[in-house]
Amino acid sequence: MTQRVHNFNAGPAALPLPVLEEVQRDLLALPGVGMSILELSHRSSTFLAMMEEAEANLRRLLRVPEGWHVLFLPGGATLQFAMVPMSFLAAGESADYLVTGTWSAKAVKEVARLGKTARVAFDGKPESYVRAPVTGEVDVNPHAAYVHYTANETIHGVEYGEPPAVGSVPLICDASSNFLSRPFEVGRHALVYAGAQKNVGPAGVTIVLLREELLSKVPDGLPSMLDYRVQVDEKSNHNTPPVFAIYVVLLVTRWLLGQGGLAEIEARNREKAELVYRAIDGSGGFYRGHAQPESRSRMNVAFRLPDEETEKRFLAEAGKAGLAGLKGHRSVGGIRASLYNAVPKAAAEALAGFMEDFRRRAG
Amino acid sequence: MTQRVHNFNAGPAALPLPVLEEVQRDLLALPGVGMSILELSHRSSTFLAMMEEAEANLRRLLRVPEGWHVLFLPGGATLQFAMVPMSFLAAGESADYLVTGTWSAKAVKEVARLGKTARVAFDGKPESYVRAPVTGEVDVNPHAAYVHYTANETIHGVEYGEPPAVGSVPLICDASSNFLSRPFEVGRHALVYAGAQKNVGPAGVTIVLLREELLSKVPDGLPSMLDYRVQVDEKSNHNTPPVFAIYVVLLVTRWLLGQGGLAEIEARNREKAELVYRAIDGSGGFYRGHAQPESRSRMNVAFRLPDEETEKRFLAEAGKAGLAGLKGHRSVGGIRASLYNAVPKAAAEALAGFMEDFRRRAG
Repeated sequence: MTQRVHNFNAGPAALPLPVLEEVQRDLLALPGVGMSILELSHRSSTFLAMMEEAEANLRRLLRVPEGWHVLFLPGGATLQFAMVPMSFLAAGESADYLVTGTWSAKAVKEVARLGKTARVAFDGKPESYVRAPVTGEVDVNPHAAYVHYTANETIHGVEYGEPPAVGSVPLICDASSNFLSRPFEVGRHALVYAGAQKNVGPAGVTIVLLREELLSKVPDGLPSMLDYRVQVDEKSNHNTPPVFAIYVVLLVTRWLLGQGGLAEIEARNREKAELVYRAIDGSGGFYRGHAQPESRSRMNVAFRLPDEETEKRFLAEAGKAGLAGLKGHRSVGGIRASLYNAVPKAAAEALAGFMEDFRRRAG
Repeated sequence: MTQRVHNFNAGPAALPLPVLEEVQRDLLALPGVGMSILELSHRSSTFLAMMEEAEANLRRLLRVPEGWHVLFLPGGATLQFAMVPMSFLAAGESADYLVTGTWSAKAVKEVARLGKTARVAFDGKPESYVRAPVTGEVDVNPHAAYVHYTANETIHGVEYGEPPAVGSVPLICDASSNFLSRPFEVGRHALVYAGAQKNVGPAGVTIVLLREELLSKVPDGLPSMLDYRVQVDEKSNHNTPPVFAIYVVLLVTRWLLGQGGLAEIEARNREKAELVYRAIDGSGGFYRGHAQPESRSRMNVAFRLPDEETEKRFLAEAGKAGLAGLKGHRSVGGIRASLYNAVPKAAAEALAGFMEDFRRRAG
């Protein structure tokens, strides 16, 4: 077997090794089925049971309230950027968007592209996206069709401590990059979506949780694949869903339950993030974190070095030391270490150790 | 390793064993990369090279003409049912649809759902979907925005021998279930799409081939994920594409080239289909094929037995004999044997032998 590196990719990202091992073991033939998961009918009782268990595991992990649906959809969060306003934002209505980084800004652009109205109720751009809004700072339009926010900005490393307070306006969350990384109050929302490729599985499936009442707002005339009512009625099996991706989601959710659930996972993620932030804060300014301390993401730690030349050397030496995927997004530059659920503490320790060592030599 | 059965699934369906073995071998870490294909960034040079090679292989296998784009999109053929009229059928225009079975009928329904106009230029329903139209039979509207047809009807087992003649009207083909099963004149079309999960890979990616000139017809205001122009500009990497599914498509196209390309594959597919049709035709009426002989699909052989009780016994005994996935679609009933590229001749032989044996015992 080829040696595995420490994988700090922002997504697609590290998956739990026991999950990968199970996928590998059964790749030619699922036990008792005689064919590969890649060859299995989406209408087979074997796969239907997998979907049911994956859904049940998500409900259990997140304590999803009664009256909520759980969907597995194609197209990524970017398709949700469109499905949300196509479904819940009528002509003449306005929706509030909280913009804390690249991804929430993209969600706003998608609304405009559809010729609909998004009002930016918080704009982090003038401060270069270094924080989430604080309580009381967001001036929500009480007549907004909904408020949309991004729980964690993968590129800027900005994370909400808890969902923003929006009164009685329906709250919609793009949770792609911190989904299942900590306990989460689903019930404070109307709809939550997350691309799987950070904490939940491979690229190719998006998990959507939505409240039953919301469905009555969906207009006719949408493509059937983009109609939440159709997807609910057909239990995400309206056409052939991404069978393999859903299978891996099942294995990851089983793994999460086996680890003790989201409270335990949160404790580990906090510990991993602290290791890296401590290396930043203790560097005497050699490393500079992008996000303000109170909005620091536990999933994506974005930071800079004194100059780009040193950043290049950092990345090259890290690569040689088996620390992969640390290059910051081109729009922010610098370094980004993603510390998703499946990144082990040993990887965070190795990174923190490397950072200290590198600083001593370069500082 | 668990024993593998003969897999006659209609899709997701059998994949070549050497492909599955390579996926399995490298599942924990791609050689020289140090991480699983499931953990690999969609912007990494490794994955970009994979996409390029998969595209080049498709171009080579299908002799895709100059001036055509090759896309890897999410959402399956069902999303293409909507994207095609959203892109190429303006208000006030009409498109012609040739309806030869369940799938082309669904494509028509999707147009109506969007409030657009599809004219059924051939309707196979009165004959219970037993054939494709013959030359000269289709009365194409010369002002139609396009003509849409389904190259192979998976459920009814009806396949066109060659693309229908439509004069100068742009021809659009849903090739999902016979894509890459035989040489195909891409250049006679304006757009061709195919869900991967029959002959090309696992569920979760759809291949779209389209002519450059078509892009000028795409209107503004579509969701970015549904805008072919965006997908062309971003080389199918507008958001995170289904990395794993595209990787398997790459391996399957490599396998196809290694087998000698589509002419060789066609010869094998013809041979496999003949084995099963011969068992039907030589059964003295015990087995009754659904499609008329000149429209018989090489991919999906749909047939009935004298009564449902006998069909049930056939399926139960076939299952015990290691022949899986033979149950016909509930809308047609009876038996369906899918004989995609990856189904080996030995499987078709085993099925034909079983059919003969069963008939002797039951007939």
